[in-house]
Amino acid sequence: MTSLDEKFRTLATDNAPGQEVRHPGDDIDALVIGEILSGAPVDFSHGDVDAFEPSPGSFDCFAQGVQIGGKRAYTEYRGDAGIREALAVRLARFTGAPVAGTDDLIITPGSQGALFLALASTISAGDKVAIVRPDYFANRKLVQFLDGEIVPVRMDYHATNDSAGLDLGELEDAFRAGVKVFVFSNPNNPAGVVYSRTEIDHISRLAGRYGVTVIVDQLYSRLVYSGTTYTHLRAVEGSAHNIITIMGPSKTESLSGYRLGVAFGSPAIITRMEKLQAIVSLRAAGYSQSVLQTWLAEPDGWMEERIRRHQAIRDELHSMLTAVAGVAARLPQAGSYLFARLPALAVSPHDFVRILRYQAKVIVTPGTEFSPDAGNSVRLNFSQDHHAAVNAVGRMMALIERYRV
Amino acid sequence: MTSLDEKFRTLATDNAPGQEVRHPGDDIDALVIGEILSGAPVDFSHGDVDAFEPSPGSFDCFAQGVQIGGKRAYTEYRGDAGIREALAVRLARFTGAPVAGTDDLIITPGSQGALFLALASTISAGDKVAIVRPDYFANRKLVQFLDGEIVPVRMDYHATNDSAGLDLGELEDAFRAGVKVFVFSNPNNPAGVVYSRTEIDHISRLAGRYGVTVIVDQLYSRLVYSGTTYTHLRAVEGSAHNIITIMGPSKTESLSGYRLGVAFGSPAIITRMEKLQAIVSLRAAGYSQSVLQTWLAEPDGWMEERIRRHQAIRDELHSMLTAVAGVAARLPQAGSYLFARLPALAVSPHDFVRILRYQAKVIVTPGTEFSPDAGNSVRLNFSQDHHAAVNAVGRMMALIERYRV
Repeated sequence: MTSLDEKFRTLATDNAPGQEVRHPGDDIDALVIGEILSGAPVDFSHGDVDAFEPSPGSFDCFAQGVQIGGKRAYTEYRGDAGIREALAVRLARFTGAPVAGTDDLIITPGSQGALFLALASTISAGDKVAIVRPDYFANRKLVQFLDGEIVPVRMDYHATNDSAGLDLGELEDAFRAGVKVFVFSNPNNPAGVVYSRTEIDHISRLAGRYGVTVIVDQLYSRLVYSGTTYTHLRAVEGSAHNIITIMGPSKTESLSGYRLGVAFGSPAIITRMEKLQAIVSLRAAGYSQSVLQTWLAEPDGWMEERIRRHQAIRDELHSMLTAVAGVAARLPQAGSYLFARLPALAVSPHDFVRILRYQAKVIVTPGTEFSPDAGNSVRLNFSQDHHAAVNAVGRMMALIERYRV
Repeated sequence: MTSLDEKFRTLATDNAPGQEVRHPGDDIDALVIGEILSGAPVDFSHGDVDAFEPSPGSFDCFAQGVQIGGKRAYTEYRGDAGIREALAVRLARFTGAPVAGTDDLIITPGSQGALFLALASTISAGDKVAIVRPDYFANRKLVQFLDGEIVPVRMDYHATNDSAGLDLGELEDAFRAGVKVFVFSNPNNPAGVVYSRTEIDHISRLAGRYGVTVIVDQLYSRLVYSGTTYTHLRAVEGSAHNIITIMGPSKTESLSGYRLGVAFGSPAIITRMEKLQAIVSLRAAGYSQSVLQTWLAEPDGWMEERIRRHQAIRDELHSMLTAVAGVAARLPQAGSYLFARLPALAVSPHDFVRILRYQAKVIVTPGTEFSPDAGNSVRLNFSQDHHAAVNAVGRMMALIERYRV
């Protein structure tokens, strides 16, 4: 079983959000300095869906789905036709390019399900796949699971404020070297930066020229802060046909618990994704898909208010952290991730993450999950109770000082 | 993309339950004889969850899960620890062998999710996998997706009434030839037969002797009819450690719409399955996992009543069908599948299935989905409204006579 053993070693979830509970303290006592800091625990590894109300009517829609019963439980594998048709109209409006509900859209178990299905439908063993560094850890792990070959592309998110900082030369080199699929998140997870119009245009042109399939994870593309222009790749003029866009109601809407995602774009790829869904999870998310009826259809002003509250947390945490000597972080342009580079510490960044959890009851995600070059950074999901998050970052700052070299 | 194209061609879902809506009538008019038969449409391709009430309290449990919020949405990838612990006790009682909630159990999106995760965690490209003919179509398709090599093992379910009819000699030949994983459903889907104690003992011994991992899909093992003894492979003395058992609340409990499954057994394999779940669907079924609190914990007599009602439908449909000259079918011992061999007809079995849908509003699943040798059989899921099912089978009988050679 060597080969499978190796593969699953690369799929380690030890540092993944939510898995901390499976790893007891071990040797932490030998590392710590000073006392435990008191305060409400904050888990920045994912958003706190209790901090924000779910979008209005979501539970009622679910309850109606249960009442509908069999017709909602046993839909086409890609999801209920009526829900798809109505949602397609709203997705077309949101992204600025047509979506045909019949053929261009699939409902999946979470946006993670969509990401897996999209990659598994476009990658064979040995295929080259361009992956941004840093980017969402599952991108890399999925390519490893599918026996693809990762071609890293650098994103220098600290170098600029006008773009994400993707190295477009390196991207073209990768495409020229035979990359078949390019997968990336926009806004970038973990850095919270948004690709500029110029970057998206460039990606679109290159994909067309080299025949590369592009999978763009736009999970957080609704949560865009003031002053930022968001460009939907699929709406760029002359964009290649082989584009799959992934979204879903999630932390932004406090609906993660319903486990819903959607993918839309190339009907040929969507058809493959449905065939695969039939054997990996059978059907769209059953009764839960009913909740999509509220999505992108919230009351006027609802989303604006949600953005405003997140922006307030973002601003306060960002200014707290960047006031610490040696800490660097871009101001997130969208989504709820803040990626902070730590100063030199007397313990390894990995141990500092463990110490944070143990001494401050603050959980963050180590940067190595996103890039081998981001070992001294940590990711915070700031979709949290504002007050608790500020206190938690205060404790984190205190521990940075305590462990500073 | 040739290789992926080929792979996805083998994953065709054209004849899969629920997908009929994607295939319009085509050339059906040239085939049909006589008039359309009137009557309520019945979709035997899957159970009708509206025909039987969901188990008591299931919706309330879901609603409580939503109230719990973040702690229920963001559990360990393998599912909420409390739900797992409590369920493990009931699964141990049900199957007759210990289950440790901490390490031996994972909650998945549907039992289909469990099947995929189990196979993807144990099969590498080129590995030999023993598959029973006939058996659930996803077993075969999953092995194809994972680039495994299928080694078919014959089950002569018509030859006996005392066992499933598995060819144990052929199974040992397959194991001797290097099979790494054996996956099978018990009760068998589509034939509705239950493996005898002797067969299960034999499978257990052979798996131990040849070091084969066994994945047993026991989805319908609760719905066992009078006179049948059900043997849980995992409880057989001396059973190998590499066993994964798959179950879930589904049509039996009218809970399919919550998309829940569980897998339990070898902690090493469960750990791999969790790592994989983290990248293919992220987490256990979110709020839905709350519904597991009602499962295997129904009020006294509830399951017995559900079995009694299914047994009544089974008995009536089976005697109707087997009274037709040339039709053969084993009396299902468990589950809700009835697999009927048709007499010689003037149209191909595939066209007869289309004609049934068009002229009788009766949907059945063609036997070729389960075995290349079962082309003249069709599968009926008889978990339906009793009255509607009897009428639908009446129409099917009329069309058999109409198209008989």
